[in-house]
This record gives sequence, structure tokens and C-alpha cells, in this order.
Amino acid sequence: MALRFRPVDGTFYELFTDSARGLVRGADLLAEVLADGADRATVAERMRVAEHECDEITHDIVRRVNSTFVTPFDREDIYSLASGLDDVMDYMEEAVDLVNLYEVERLPKQLAQQVEVLQRCAELTAEAMPRLQAMKDLDEYWIEVNRLENTGDKTYRRILAKLFSGKYDALEVLKLKDVVDSLEKAIDAFEKVANIVEQIHVKET
Amino acid sequence: MALRFRPVDGTFYELFTDSARGLVRGADLLAEVLADGADRATVAERMRVAEHECDEITHDIVRRVNSTFVTPFDREDIYSLASGLDDVMDYMEEAVDLVNLYEVERLPKQLAQQVEVLQRCAELTAEAMPRLQAMKDLDEYWIEVNRLENTGDKTYRRILAKLFSGKYDALEVLKLKDVVDSLEKAIDAFEKVANIVEQIHVKET
Amino acid sequence: MALRFRPVDGTFYELFTDSARGLVRGADLLAEVLADGADRATVAERMRVAEHECDEITHDIVRRVNSTFVTPFDREDIYSLASGLDDVMDYMEEAVDLVNLYEVERLPKQLAQQVEVLQRCAELTAEAMPRLQAMKDLDEYWIEVNRLENTGDKTYRRILAKLFSGKYDALEVLKLKDVVDSLEKAIDAFEKVANIVEQIHVKET
Repeated sequence: MALRFRPVDGTFYELFTDSARGLVRGADLLAEVLADGADRATVAERMRVAEHECDEITHDIVRRVNSTFVTPFDREDIYSLASGLDDVMDYMEEAVDLVNLYEVERLPKQLAQQVEVLQRCAELTAEAMPRLQAMKDLDEYWIEVNRLENTGDKTYRRILAKLFSGKYDALEVLKLKDVVDSLEKAIDAFEKVANIVEQIHVKET
Repeated sequence: MALRFRPVDGTFYELFTDSARGLVRGADLLAEVLADGADRATVAERMRVAEHECDEITHDIVRRVNSTFVTPFDREDIYSLASGLDDVMDYMEEAVDLVNLYEVERLPKQLAQQVEVLQRCAELTAEAMPRLQAMKDLDEYWIEVNRLENTGDKTYRRILAKLFSGKYDALEVLKLKDVVDSLEKAIDAFEKVANIVEQIHVKET
Repeated sequence: MALRFRPVDGTFYELFTDSARGLVRGADLLAEVLADGADRATVAERMRVAEHECDEITHDIVRRVNSTFVTPFDREDIYSLASGLDDVMDYMEEAVDLVNLYEVERLPKQLAQQVEVLQRCAELTAEAMPRLQAMKDLDEYWIEVNRLENTGDKTYRRILAKLFSGKYDALEVLKLKDVVDSLEKAIDAFEKVANIVEQIHVKET
């Protein structure tokens, strides 16, 4: 019996990179919607388009996983990574959407710090994806994302304490908490992506 | 060495159909609890029974997956589909439970639209399950559920904007938001089921 | 071709037991933070350390799963069990953290009941983990955890009804609901662990 060999498909790495680049764009739109004088409705619309494009890439990856005989690494890991990247985008889109929808007035200034964390995580992730092919120089990426998530967590807790300090009324707290939670979930989702990459690395090397 | 063949078990399709029929019943009870003059406690009790029956079917499916040698499609997909259907029921039960528990007075009328979306999704899902056996005529099902989820999402956002418009006090918003979020999660869970079916279809055909 | 045999690694059972013992400690710290006159900040700090230790064990399990040729049961089940135990710890840490962070004043006394349920679940889980090796006498464990989760669910609903009864103002409800929801998620996570153990048992016997 002869074994057939097929070159491992390079497009998976390209698709992961495309997906992560979508996250860089999403994080930038998040920064834009929070800026003074932003046309929130327009930014939210552009975010919706960006999220939709990211969705398409995810679907494309899943379709290829299901129809490709040889995959660069475990099918389930490809699937986890694709969904993980998609989750980040969903939470960022949720945050932009809520800022627009709730017509939030006074945003605690620490929100900008969370968005900076998201922008940095997105850049690191987009830079790391092409390195999956050689499975090299990935540890600095996941270490840094874990560190950023820790910083984000401390800021998150400071924001919560501020929200409940009595300076905001209950309805305002309800709105702001939804926005802040979306940002927190997006940061956590970046960490989850980094953990998936670490796991793939352990398996494949 | 002789290979033993065993006919692929038909009962999986029957169990999925039973589970989805439970969702039709659940969506109907949801409509009932929101009707004027409903005896909410009684409807909530009937919903609890329906949810429990659905649970039993899910357990039955999982047990069979683990003890059956040949399954109609990938074990993990059977498991995902069973859990996916179960999740829908859990969220619908949660919604009924909260309407009863919180003694919510003024329900925004758009809630009825969300329940109609759920009823339609449930019917489509129950009709699609038996078609899994032939793996035919399934695309119209998942396309329509995705369309319904989109409509539901727009309504959800309109309800949120209304809740925070200042017409409701904070405590009322807290209660209503819990109910509305449960409905939203149920609709999303229907879409997830449709996506699982699409994925199974891609793999098996 | 010769098959190589390797003794199945005993340390998986030990690591699961260590992880579950961390949950006993976590549940005790939860009881401590709710006691009158507790130094909440200090307890929260000790909880953070305990949660971190639990994290390390989880990482250790995942690393071994990925690098061990023969595992005592399915890789994916080991992974699910490890993550399941870790989830319980995360929710308990969240609860302790929020009690401290929100400076919650009046805690409904039923919270103590929920913590007792968590302590009992943790003990049962820690006692059950070593029995995974022989796959014996596990049913009493998962039956009792399921029963406890049912009790916890009833208490949860009573607490919610109380929170929304008008005795608490909206901001206080927001804070307390976060704490109560964390406890509820921790109890649910214990049930999920018990269900995973049941599933492993069905497969392996």
C-alpha cells in the first residue's frame, strides 16, 4: 500500500493572519468610537462590516478544515484557534455597538487604557500568526499577551470599583458595566487565543 | 480478520427530532407565560417538566453515543448537536422562570416578536431533524434560521435602547434585561444548532 | 511490528486530586470572606494565591496530556475534567473578589447556604478524584452533587426574588447579583465536573 503525500496547505496560516489583522482593525475602530466628537453611528456601521468580514474568514477556515485531507496541525486546534479569533471580534463589536446604542455620556477615562491593551494584543496576535508555520519565536507573544491580560484585569477591577463608588446612578452603571464587560471579555479572549497557540506549540514541537 | 457490520442506529435521528419537538413545546409555553392573565406559576411549572424531559433525551443521546460502535456521524458532532438543542431549552426555561419569579409588570411589546422568532426557529428545527438521515434539503433550514437570528438581533437592540431610554426605573431595567437576554441567548442557541447541522452536512456529503 | 507498552501514568489521578483539594480550600476561603468582621482584602489575597496554584495544576495536566503517549482515559476527557475543576475555582475566586471589591454591606443570609453547598461539593469532589483510578464507587458522588445543585438552584431563586422585592436599592442589587451569580456559576460548574466524571465512567467501564 502506497501512502499518498500532499503538501500541507499554506493558506491556513494566511487565513489566520487575515483574521488577526481584522482584530487590529477592530481595536482601532474601538479607539475611534471612544474619541471625543466621534460619529458613533458611522463607526458602529464600519465595525459591523469589519466583524462580518472576520466571520467570513472564520467560515472559510472551518470549510477548509472539513474538506482538507492533510491539515498543518490538529483539526480541533485549527477550529479552536479560528473560533478564538472570532470571539475577540465579537466582543469588540459588542462594545462598539453598546457605546453607540446606549448613548453613553460620561465614559470613565480608564476605558482608554483597556482599548490600548486590546490594540497591543491585536498587533501581537497579527504578528504571531505567520510564525505558526515555522512554529518558532512564539513564546514571547503568548507571554506578553498574558502580561497584558493581567494589566487589563487590574484596570477592569479599578473601573468596577469606580462605577460602584456612588458617582454614577444605577442606570448609568448598568450601561457602563455592559461596555466595560465587553472590553474585559475581548481581552480574556485574546489570552485564550494565546493559550491555544501555546498548546499547539507544545503538541507540534 | 472479519469486519463486522452493524446497521447505523436510526434512533439518533428520532431522539434529535424528539428533542427539537420539545423546543416547539417550550417556545409555545414561552408565548403562554407572556400572554395577559396567564397563570405564570403554573406555566413555569409545566415548562420545568418540559425542560426535564428534554434533559432526559439529551442524556439518552449521550449514553448511546458512548455505548454505540457505529454512529451515523462523528461522535463529537452528535454530542454538539444534542448539547446545542439542550442549550436552547435551558435558555427558554430561564426566560419563563424569570418572568414568573421577578413578577415583571410591564413587558415591552417587542418581547412577543422575539417569542415568535423562537417559535418559528423551533418549528424549522423540528422539521429539519428527520432530514438529517438523508442529509438532504437542509440548506433552506439553516439559511432561514440565520435570517431569523438577524431579525431577532435587530429587535433585541431596539428593546435594549427602549429599556435605557428613561421610561423604566433601574430595578425594572435589571429585571427586564435578564428576561430579554435569556430570549436573545435562546435565539443565538438556535443559530448555533443550525451552524452545527451545516457543519455536519459539509463533512458527510 | 512490536507494540510498545508503557504503564499508564498514575500522576493524572494525583493531579486531579490536588486540583479538587484546591477547591476545598477555595470554598473555605469563601466562607471566611463572608464571616462578620473578616479582613476581606487579606482573604481575597489568599484566594488569589489559591487560584493561582490551581491554575498551575491545570497547566501541568494539559502539558502532560500533550506529551504523554498513553493516557489513563481519553485525552479530551482529561482536558474537560481539568478545565471543569479550574472553572469552579475561577468562579469562587470571582465571588471572593467581588465581595471585597464592591464593599458589599448587607449580604442576604441565604448566601451562607450557597457557600455550604459549595463546601460540600468540594469535599465530595476531592474524595471522588482518587476513586477515578479504580473507576469504582463514583455514582454516589455524582448523584449527591446533582442533588446539591438542585438545592442550590432553589436557594438561588429565593435570593433573586428577595433582591428584587424592593428591600434593596438598584445599585445594591447590581452588586449583590454579581456575587450571587458567581456562587451560582460555581455550583453549576461542580455539577458539570460530576457530569464529566459520569461520562468518563460510562465510556471506560
